[in-house]
Amino acid sequence: MAPQLDPYFKKVDELADSFIDRLRKAVAIPSVSADEDKRKDVVRMGQFLASELEALGAEVQQRPLGKQPGKEHLDLPPVVIARYGNDKNKRTILVYGHYDVQPALMEDGWATEPFKLTIDEKDRMYGRGSTDDKGPVLGWLNAIEAHQKAGVDFPVNLLCCFEGMEEYGSEGLDDFINAEAKKFFKDADAVCISDNYWLGTEKPCLTYGLRGCNYYSVAISGPGQDLHSGVFGGTAHEPMTDLVHILGKLVDTKGKILIPGINEMVAPLTEEEKALYGPISYTMDNLYESLGSKSAIFDDKERTLMARWRYPSLSIHGVEGAFSAPGAKTVIPAKVIGKFSIRTVPDMESSQVNDAVFKFIKEEFAKLGSKNTLDVYCQHDGKWWVASPKHWNFTAASKAVKQVFGVEPDMTREGGSIPVTITFEQATGKNVLLLPMGSSTDAAHSINEKLDRKNYIEGTKLLGAYLHYVAEEPMVNA
Amino acid sequence: MAPQLDPYFKKVDELADSFIDRLRKAVAIPSVSADEDKRKDVVRMGQFLASELEALGAEVQQRPLGKQPGKEHLDLPPVVIARYGNDKNKRTILVYGHYDVQPALMEDGWATEPFKLTIDEKDRMYGRGSTDDKGPVLGWLNAIEAHQKAGVDFPVNLLCCFEGMEEYGSEGLDDFINAEAKKFFKDADAVCISDNYWLGTEKPCLTYGLRGCNYYSVAISGPGQDLHSGVFGGTAHEPMTDLVHILGKLVDTKGKILIPGINEMVAPLTEEEKALYGPISYTMDNLYESLGSKSAIFDDKERTLMARWRYPSLSIHGVEGAFSAPGAKTVIPAKVIGKFSIRTVPDMESSQVNDAVFKFIKEEFAKLGSKNTLDVYCQHDGKWWVASPKHWNFTAASKAVKQVFGVEPDMTREGGSIPVTITFEQATGKNVLLLPMGSSTDAAHSINEKLDRKNYIEGTKLLGAYLHYVAEEPMVNA
Repeated sequence: MAPQLDPYFKKVDELADSFIDRLRKAVAIPSVSADEDKRKDVVRMGQFLASELEALGAEVQQRPLGKQPGKEHLDLPPVVIARYGNDKNKRTILVYGHYDVQPALMEDGWATEPFKLTIDEKDRMYGRGSTDDKGPVLGWLNAIEAHQKAGVDFPVNLLCCFEGMEEYGSEGLDDFINAEAKKFFKDADAVCISDNYWLGTEKPCLTYGLRGCNYYSVAISGPGQDLHSGVFGGTAHEPMTDLVHILGKLVDTKGKILIPGINEMVAPLTEEEKALYGPISYTMDNLYESLGSKSAIFDDKERTLMARWRYPSLSIHGVEGAFSAPGAKTVIPAKVIGKFSIRTVPDMESSQVNDAVFKFIKEEFAKLGSKNTLDVYCQHDGKWWVASPKHWNFTAASKAVKQVFGVEPDMTREGGSIPVTITFEQATGKNVLLLPMGSSTDAAHSINEKLDRKNYIEGTKLLGAYLHYVAEEPMVNA
Repeated sequence: MAPQLDPYFKKVDELADSFIDRLRKAVAIPSVSADEDKRKDVVRMGQFLASELEALGAEVQQRPLGKQPGKEHLDLPPVVIARYGNDKNKRTILVYGHYDVQPALMEDGWATEPFKLTIDEKDRMYGRGSTDDKGPVLGWLNAIEAHQKAGVDFPVNLLCCFEGMEEYGSEGLDDFINAEAKKFFKDADAVCISDNYWLGTEKPCLTYGLRGCNYYSVAISGPGQDLHSGVFGGTAHEPMTDLVHILGKLVDTKGKILIPGINEMVAPLTEEEKALYGPISYTMDNLYESLGSKSAIFDDKERTLMARWRYPSLSIHGVEGAFSAPGAKTVIPAKVIGKFSIRTVPDMESSQVNDAVFKFIKEEFAKLGSKNTLDVYCQHDGKWWVASPKHWNFTAASKAVKQVFGVEPDMTREGGSIPVTITFEQATGKNVLLLPMGSSTDAAHSINEKLDRKNYIEGTKLLGAYLHYVAEEPMVNA
């Protein structure tokens, strides 16, 4: 039987202005984790969250993470963890979000003060952190408050994990999650993260997969120092010449990876998986708009989304050590480091990918017959993640979307990575659902970041409704 | 009959300490032309030169060059021009040098104060500008003074052109030279420039050729803005992928230019020219030392020097617009500009080189089948220069080397360009000789720039002796 959510929904609508006020207060705190001078604001933001949670009756702890690696004078901001409800007869849902934000300055090109929530005539609420990730985090708090004020029993026990360093590599968080998995988080039956975005602007989505990323450096060196191309051009093996030859062999213009063995590692497309792509609300015009051009490789939606989500890609990011400024400089760089990465997907194993990359690049370099020296290595790797979209955690969310928005959600994956997803999955052993609140046009990390009022208010309804459906779903792991 | 130079040489030796003191005063003036805050010091250095020349009896003018392009609040330093002697029965030699210097700071790694001439136990005189180009410029003044004090008649009329912006692109100088070619410089019978270096450390050289340089940009653009490789990798044509494919087709690891038509433009090697290379004092160890490695393309001296001087080369300098910092950034750059240059030699015509480059790159880009946009253009070009090493200007210098140093000079070319050389040749229509004073180890433009005492004092003798032989050479243009 579908839960009776009308009183809750009505209360959310009644409280909308106060929820927006809560977001206004949060946006006003410039909790920029990358800026050492703003660390006190990050801490203040954590304190704000803790106070709000305590006022709602949650049991809250601010847990220190020690000093920031490489900046031993600087304390990491605390992880704010909380428990709301402790009923053994209810399911327990662990939710994650982050209260730090990307840097933002008026001079970057913002149309409004980035740390002042500004609402325009279309109810777009501009401000740094509005959508990434203060709006979604406050959505959970709003849901608690609306239940209380509507007199509706909260359907689950809620565990919160809100961190303050997400925009700076989530320093210290993995160890914390692993340590607390069998302690503070031990009752969690499933995990829900609201920190990504709808594929478009009209239809919510549930996200069940992420690509991984193996990031490589190809360093080629020869001369003892940078050389003048007039004096030495023609007499010495130039590292940059060797590097462009190597980089030119990795991937073709149409995105096909040319390193032998890589494409063979990719899990074949099943009919069941293929069927997920047809109903997705996405058009080539959506792609062209976000690209800012029509330079797409594929002409159809399905192949484009598969290329983004379920096939690997190889991007060449740049060259360290070479001339990179405007103008003309006649240098022969002595050491150049090409940077590229491979987005990985099931069933690619990181170590096998590395082996294939290293072998191919070493062979191609040997073919050049250069007297320069090659060093190729993996800077970092992060695993891909795919969850079962048929798990009760997803079916509950899907029903909630249907009830709040009147549509079936898009079942999406992301081309990028959200490393904390895998950390939670591995540490808790539970299903993880990505349930975004913001839309594709929210400009997280860019100037003029915003969250639409509709996404915030209906999103608050969605988070509450999801918890009700979670409470009712039969416990069958798909 | 060889001129009687012993009294002059003897006087140079007697005055050596005062000549070094003159250099000390000059080095103490930090005439850094690239540094706006030091413009007053550049002007002060010009004033110092003018005063010294006037004290020697020269007619001196400090000629303004107007405002610095792009910095309209800033006056260019004056060109110091001078005439010493006005005897219609003597030849007139125009000499060029520059009184500005490269930037220098202790924190760059200097072992001694860069603007304090410091002489070590091996009589190496360290200081910014010592060899580039204050020592050679003062060499001409020293030569005048030693003639006066030795009571030896100065053998020629001397015209001086000393500029203060050489290390910053010789702003304004070309127009000045062209304007004065038929005025202040109209009597010049030949030109001598002392602003390059011996090939090694033991043997002087005369330089009769320079390579030119055509500098290219290959711009490839597609997306409207930089993209996240997780979100867009695999779905869009990436400009960086296209660029490395293009750059990888320009030149092979062994320095062979792969652009059709370029190598065919090169003047064939004659037996006469080839014969100049055998006697040159240069070894592969000299190259390895200056490279700081053994990553040389050729194993023999002749082929190496030819590759540096008389064959074209193509160097890839870097990429603008891509990720160039240390670390890992997962960006798909929206627009990248590859920079490369071709060092040109006789008989390559700049416009034909451009045509061949543009045609090839456009064809190769078309083959890629990319939806990105290509733009390839020449940022700047400078012509190669080759003088006849048999002109009387050169034979006079050769005899002077023989007399002062007891050896035949190396007949060299330079792989790089010295644009003022061509300007003087074209404006005056006269033979131009490059007659260096410093050695290959002087580290011009680097930290710990120096000029050996021997090079400075014997170099002063050489400049004076050269003028005597110039006065005696039969006027036959080879």
